[in-house]
Amino acid sequence: MGLKPFILITNDDGVLAGGLKALTEVASEFGDVIVVAPDDSQSGMSHAITIKQPVRVDSKKEKEGLKIYSCSGTPVDCVKLALNQLLDRKPDLLLSGINHGSNASVSVLYSGTMAAAIEGGVNGIHSIGFSLLDYSQDADFTLAKDISRRVIKEVMKNGVPTEICLNVNIPVVSKGSLKGIKICRQTKGFWKEEFVKRTDPFNRDYYWLTGHFNNNEPDAKDTDEWALKNNYASIVPIRVDYTCFDYIQELEKRTF
Amino acid sequence: MGLKPFILITNDDGVLAGGLKALTEVASEFGDVIVVAPDDSQSGMSHAITIKQPVRVDSKKEKEGLKIYSCSGTPVDCVKLALNQLLDRKPDLLLSGINHGSNASVSVLYSGTMAAAIEGGVNGIHSIGFSLLDYSQDADFTLAKDISRRVIKEVMKNGVPTEICLNVNIPVVSKGSLKGIKICRQTKGFWKEEFVKRTDPFNRDYYWLTGHFNNNEPDAKDTDEWALKNNYASIVPIRVDYTCFDYIQELEKRTF
Repeated sequence: MGLKPFILITNDDGVLAGGLKALTEVASEFGDVIVVAPDDSQSGMSHAITIKQPVRVDSKKEKEGLKIYSCSGTPVDCVKLALNQLLDRKPDLLLSGINHGSNASVSVLYSGTMAAAIEGGVNGIHSIGFSLLDYSQDADFTLAKDISRRVIKEVMKNGVPTEICLNVNIPVVSKGSLKGIKICRQTKGFWKEEFVKRTDPFNRDYYWLTGHFNNNEPDAKDTDEWALKNNYASIVPIRVDYTCFDYIQELEKRTF
Repeated sequence: MGLKPFILITNDDGVLAGGLKALTEVASEFGDVIVVAPDDSQSGMSHAITIKQPVRVDSKKEKEGLKIYSCSGTPVDCVKLALNQLLDRKPDLLLSGINHGSNASVSVLYSGTMAAAIEGGVNGIHSIGFSLLDYSQDADFTLAKDISRRVIKEVMKNGVPTEICLNVNIPVVSKGSLKGIKICRQTKGFWKEEFVKRTDPFNRDYYWLTGHFNNNEPDAKDTDEWALKNNYASIVPIRVDYTCFDYIQELEKRTF
């Protein structure tokens, strides 16, 4: 080939997040890197796109020629802007993260990090999302970097179809305690919301969304939640086509 | 049973949309209906949830006892608020729409309408999203109501597992020209974005997101885009678990 792989990086925690810096450092070992990330936190934005207002882009130059753009939109806006406006060629790989906090189980539905990876897949780009189970801004990304390096290396060597992107979650353990990297399925569960209801100074109610995750199958050893609780990093292959193929034949028997 | 089915309705076009009114009318033929919908358009918000700010709820009473709530959040916020705060029992059915515009192919990823249906599925509720391929505010919902009625009737009679929700799209044709309701898979394709770049009065660039849909397989007769172009209404079963089960075994062979 001669050419170095071209790698697009984004996230949902914003351009200043420590996890983005960690992922950029690892990716730079593998190829030419460009960053297009939100200018502020876009957690929980899922696959949202900005339609009602325009999007702004700022470009920042970093040392050693690394190009960083920040964008006022969502993670998916970042990917769309990168592919259609900012980059002069199609990336070979899209990496999203490293997210500050878990994207295991159904959190993949709400995650801006994983939506960016899915958007990469839709556009025919090999895509991986990374998350560390530590929400703090000054989380230690040492182990997460090590695992990201191993996953990127394997995917660059043996590939993964672009219709599948990988959801990689990393537990908060020491390197010595990590049991390995486990291939999993998405845990069945849901977020049990406990909205906090308050009254504003004008006597109008408002609600803060808060809650806890309910695992429907805590003992299922093939799930990502089980793996993470048992000191494994988890990889779930996510299909960018949401069709439930198994159920098409059953529906075809029905009379609508 | 004795009890009438309890039906939750939401959408992403907002509480005043004609499509919501149409769906409410149809649903009322089947059971007790409650509406919890965004107070304004939330198109393209996908599965986003509101984390950084609180959410407000307004309740409006309509004639004949129909309860309507409007919410300042996203469609998924509406579902979460309904299930965890506003309703006194779990709905038997969640209906979302009727959306003003298509949610066929990859539009399901960006759609707030379909995200609300998927959120219903995650919470163990039979869920259906409906969309009419007409973006105008004064679209004619006569045929869409007829098809919605047929689909709701079938699902209430024979059920669908809650891990699957239905994505129903309806073409803009006369009732006489409709060829039927076709079970389909999600068309492979992507939105080719053409950002419009402008400069504001302060000499800063901004971008408007715009584009057109690129169908990767226009001749595939088992896809929703083909069905809609050929005067069928389409139903795609959508799995709320995004795991690509077929690829787990392949990944397990790899050395990460």
